[in-house]
Amino acid sequence: MTQLNIALIGAGRIGRVHAASIAAHPDCRLATVSDAIEDAARSLAAETGAAVTPAEAAIGDPATDAVMICAPTDVHAALIETAARAGKPVFCEKPVDLDAARIRACLAVVRSTGIPLMIGFNRRFDPSFRDLKRRLDAGRIGSIELVSILSKDPAPPPVSYIERSGGLFRDMMIHDLDMARFLLGEELIAVHAAGSALVDPAIGAAGDVDTAVVTLRTGSGKLVSITNSRRATYGYDQRIEVHGSGGMLAAGNRTQTTVTEAGASGYITDPALPFFLERYADAYRAELDAFVAAIKGGTMPEPDGEDGLAAQILADAATESAKTGQTVHLQ
Amino acid sequence: MTQLNIALIGAGRIGRVHAASIAAHPDCRLATVSDAIEDAARSLAAETGAAVTPAEAAIGDPATDAVMICAPTDVHAALIETAARAGKPVFCEKPVDLDAARIRACLAVVRSTGIPLMIGFNRRFDPSFRDLKRRLDAGRIGSIELVSILSKDPAPPPVSYIERSGGLFRDMMIHDLDMARFLLGEELIAVHAAGSALVDPAIGAAGDVDTAVVTLRTGSGKLVSITNSRRATYGYDQRIEVHGSGGMLAAGNRTQTTVTEAGASGYITDPALPFFLERYADAYRAELDAFVAAIKGGTMPEPDGEDGLAAQILADAATESAKTGQTVHLQ
Amino acid sequence: MTQLNIALIGAGRIGRVHAASIAAHPDCRLATVSDAIEDAARSLAAETGAAVTPAEAAIGDPATDAVMICAPTDVHAALIETAARAGKPVFCEKPVDLDAARIRACLAVVRSTGIPLMIGFNRRFDPSFRDLKRRLDAGRIGSIELVSILSKDPAPPPVSYIERSGGLFRDMMIHDLDMARFLLGEELIAVHAAGSALVDPAIGAAGDVDTAVVTLRTGSGKLVSITNSRRATYGYDQRIEVHGSGGMLAAGNRTQTTVTEAGASGYITDPALPFFLERYADAYRAELDAFVAAIKGGTMPEPDGEDGLAAQILADAATESAKTGQTVHLQ
Amino acid sequence: MTQLNIALIGAGRIGRVHAASIAAHPDCRLATVSDAIEDAARSLAAETGAAVTPAEAAIGDPATDAVMICAPTDVHAALIETAARAGKPVFCEKPVDLDAARIRACLAVVRSTGIPLMIGFNRRFDPSFRDLKRRLDAGRIGSIELVSILSKDPAPPPVSYIERSGGLFRDMMIHDLDMARFLLGEELIAVHAAGSALVDPAIGAAGDVDTAVVTLRTGSGKLVSITNSRRATYGYDQRIEVHGSGGMLAAGNRTQTTVTEAGASGYITDPALPFFLERYADAYRAELDAFVAAIKGGTMPEPDGEDGLAAQILADAATESAKTGQTVHLQ
Repeated sequence: MTQLNIALIGAGRIGRVHAASIAAHPDCRLATVSDAIEDAARSLAAETGAAVTPAEAAIGDPATDAVMICAPTDVHAALIETAARAGKPVFCEKPVDLDAARIRACLAVVRSTGIPLMIGFNRRFDPSFRDLKRRLDAGRIGSIELVSILSKDPAPPPVSYIERSGGLFRDMMIHDLDMARFLLGEELIAVHAAGSALVDPAIGAAGDVDTAVVTLRTGSGKLVSITNSRRATYGYDQRIEVHGSGGMLAAGNRTQTTVTEAGASGYITDPALPFFLERYADAYRAELDAFVAAIKGGTMPEPDGEDGLAAQILADAATESAKTGQTVHLQ
Repeated sequence: MTQLNIALIGAGRIGRVHAASIAAHPDCRLATVSDAIEDAARSLAAETGAAVTPAEAAIGDPATDAVMICAPTDVHAALIETAARAGKPVFCEKPVDLDAARIRACLAVVRSTGIPLMIGFNRRFDPSFRDLKRRLDAGRIGSIELVSILSKDPAPPPVSYIERSGGLFRDMMIHDLDMARFLLGEELIAVHAAGSALVDPAIGAAGDVDTAVVTLRTGSGKLVSITNSRRATYGYDQRIEVHGSGGMLAAGNRTQTTVTEAGASGYITDPALPFFLERYADAYRAELDAFVAAIKGGTMPEPDGEDGLAAQILADAATESAKTGQTVHLQ
Repeated sequence: MTQLNIALIGAGRIGRVHAASIAAHPDCRLATVSDAIEDAARSLAAETGAAVTPAEAAIGDPATDAVMICAPTDVHAALIETAARAGKPVFCEKPVDLDAARIRACLAVVRSTGIPLMIGFNRRFDPSFRDLKRRLDAGRIGSIELVSILSKDPAPPPVSYIERSGGLFRDMMIHDLDMARFLLGEELIAVHAAGSALVDPAIGAAGDVDTAVVTLRTGSGKLVSITNSRRATYGYDQRIEVHGSGGMLAAGNRTQTTVTEAGASGYITDPALPFFLERYADAYRAELDAFVAAIKGGTMPEPDGEDGLAAQILADAATESAKTGQTVHLQ
Repeated sequence: MTQLNIALIGAGRIGRVHAASIAAHPDCRLATVSDAIEDAARSLAAETGAAVTPAEAAIGDPATDAVMICAPTDVHAALIETAARAGKPVFCEKPVDLDAARIRACLAVVRSTGIPLMIGFNRRFDPSFRDLKRRLDAGRIGSIELVSILSKDPAPPPVSYIERSGGLFRDMMIHDLDMARFLLGEELIAVHAAGSALVDPAIGAAGDVDTAVVTLRTGSGKLVSITNSRRATYGYDQRIEVHGSGGMLAAGNRTQTTVTEAGASGYITDPALPFFLERYADAYRAELDAFVAAIKGGTMPEPDGEDGLAAQILADAATESAKTGQTVHLQ
């Protein structure tokens, strides 16, 4: 097994990101591409030299070494189960499912088969966030007291997307909830959320929010504050601060250039990189690396299905709290 | 009335800050100093050339043009009332009182006499926060969607202070609550607070918290997130971000120098200025300016007693929410 | 001609950088690798799937579409001439030669054959420097008055390298001299250089300097200041400032992460990226892009041989000025 | 001698700066004000409560403890001599004179009388530059290899001023030449200057330059690069970098606020403070402090007359080099 043959399921925007990473990875080969929209599969296959194969066939093909799921959310769990039963390692884009019970059922299958399952919480692999985590683990700021995460998309998606998304907390903030768990290394037991539809009234009419502040607490009393907005005129704003007993660690945005322009209005520097494809380009490559390394090394990759479930439960709690205004306690 | 004769009541740390500002102000004269601890009054009077006079006598003296109250909190309201009845403009350090009912009674006296009353929310006068507010008012980032305020003291005060302070929300966060109102120009109607004692267990034992996250909401749905901690190893951390429909405004810390030192571990810049005396030195001067200008111009100064009351009500709500975990709604 | 077949001559450090770029480029194929050290050629060929071919044969092969010269400096000119006579487009690492007369002779051959020749002044393709240039051209700071370039290597090369290098001005500063020309769009007519051996006395004993300051002037009086050092403990320091009638443009270093660590000693951020392979990784890819685009588009690439000659003449003048202490005037 | 009675000679812009510092200094009293333009003296005296006294009389008055010379340059030397002969400590604004021979004669008188003489090189007292110097002395970056100083005025003075100024090197760069000596702690033995009139052709017509780059070298080979311009659209640009064997120290500009405004064009921060009155406000106070402390402590203040002479000699050399294009060597 010099190169892993990877079956890619889903040839949309994020599928294409992973296809490019696979093509550039020395230890991988993009073997097959599957997509319910056959033209999408065909076009990506043509560009990459992969074969077009229906998903079930690709998963079942003995030549397939691993499965990468980039299909729509509602088929994630079923595809994971199919791959698990075929004994194939799976990388699945977040979330496993919008329903926690469905996730639990899926993970039971995964556990019973023992396959490696990795969930695509790409931000854990951002070089700055990863380095921040490394410094935390090295004790550079003592024990954590407070984690503050800000995440703003450049512009809201269409309402048709919002309606299928599970809402801001499950669709967007789930990344930040996973990040909080990743950084803290301790479970969160209380969740309070406040949200408003300030960016687009149609989002409010669809029953969702576009601006939200969530507070969480761990069993030992550490606090987390997460801020989300569907609008940022100055790029994709993705920042983390961790306050500890001995100091503070912050990770900020990246820019296209380091150019500063000085004039009568002051000093102007670049906006943040525009959106996730640019900001997390390195992270997508690094998460593929981690997946491949785990398979080749015979270890279980992280973040795994349990991480996917835990984040979903927090997102559900935040969704509920935003409706009631009350703190939701988790056991 | 070329120079205003000012009666300073309270010769402690903050009284001395104002005494120095008064001495340096071209339109003021520090006429009298009062303090329950006579040695404190005498020593400050000797340094400044002011007379030592008991508070009541100083307020009643026809030569006194204005009263500046820097005495302990528990005598603020009574002193304001005495000065109001004597028809003297008053500057009073925050808070008016730890009890909202007592504040209301005091403000009724103030209203009935028509004296100008200014409350010492010094941060409104910080040059950076003031400029941020000016840009908000000028529409530079469109309409406000979210205000985020972070405020960390360098180190916790002694527990003996904590016990008399009314707790973190009334003692420390009240400044941030006032700042939120100042920036938003709209009242806050819902308050959720979460707090922990992570810095010093003795603070927890005294029934208070030293780390807290508060979320507030205005009637129109704008959100506010406030973070407080009694510990910061890198100076007095005082930052504000306002996110609007058209952009973002941030105001950060000041440093002693602009020196950067580059070496194998990277680039090192100064910590934030150590504490409020250094960080808000300009603000203390500017708030005196505003008080003097209001008196000389015959206008009512801001922030006034109603601002003091409003912030206190929010601090009370946060205190309650931190205990119950539930959102407190204000009418 | 879907993909260009490229003959790479030189399998050393920089040859490997270009080999990787060629491999990743959709419009190129690394056809052959040549190196006087056959093991080097063989090892790189094995990794990339290219054939090992002697340089002359590779150049002469009708299947070869373009030649990329990464061999030692002393064979650059002869290889360019061979390729020119074979009618092959050439990309050659800087410099064409250490001797201006030899460069002139080589360029005469190039001109007579009409082949495209591009010189590897990679910094012109750094995204920040390129964007700075774009803003200059867009008139963002009016007319240029002064260009200031700072370039510091992390550590000096061995003296054995220094001895063959032509000296700091020809080996290291030549990049900055080209950059000055690139930014100004006007020729430099006067050169003054001052240099010292402060980093390593052995460099001084070898007749070279390791720290240097050069001042240049254009015909219209614009000034350029270039600073070089063979030592920087905080990474590869590569910065440019352009001062104009209407403002200032600066381009600075890049870092591995955006992490800031705050503690009692202040705020610490990452050192600059370690050296040219990291800092100019994007630039190497972009210069290959430009070379390929020129060949496919039938245009002449930039920087060309005349740019290589002009920079060499400036480096010669700086070398002379550093010895005499006098300004050298160019016609 | 609780408070020093200071005789201020010169009630122009810089005289007023010092008058304010003296008024605010606990150990000083502004006793007398002198100015050839009697209205200027009278107006400043009225504001400060000082007496209007002719310069000679003020110097000779037994009640005068120290003399502060802020008169036009052409009377500096004579006033210093008068004060020296009267045994009075002198603070004199730079320069002592535009002619080095005249300075030498003046310093001979100063030496023969033994009075303390301090020259107003205010930048030595800027908190950031002073801290940079402290770190240099503490060995934070090892031994100095290169000093880089950039100094840009916001806008050129009128040509009438230029004509009397002695030219850019003696009028403006003299501050940077003094700073180089201050930082290095070693004399400079070679000077090369290049200058152009790019900002205002009338400056060129008057025989001066408005944009200049100067390179200097110490006996041990350390290098200095100084850049000056009479124009900066983004405030008063005043920066220093010192490169050493172990790292780099940089001191930058200060701004009015710490506000950042983010929008579609990126992040905008304040321009540099507008000019020397704002940027060096702290420095003017600190240099008065140093002068007063020296007098009260019976020590000789720094920078002294020899520092004034040394900077003048360097400015003369730069002026000459800018004309000839050749390096000027000093013994």
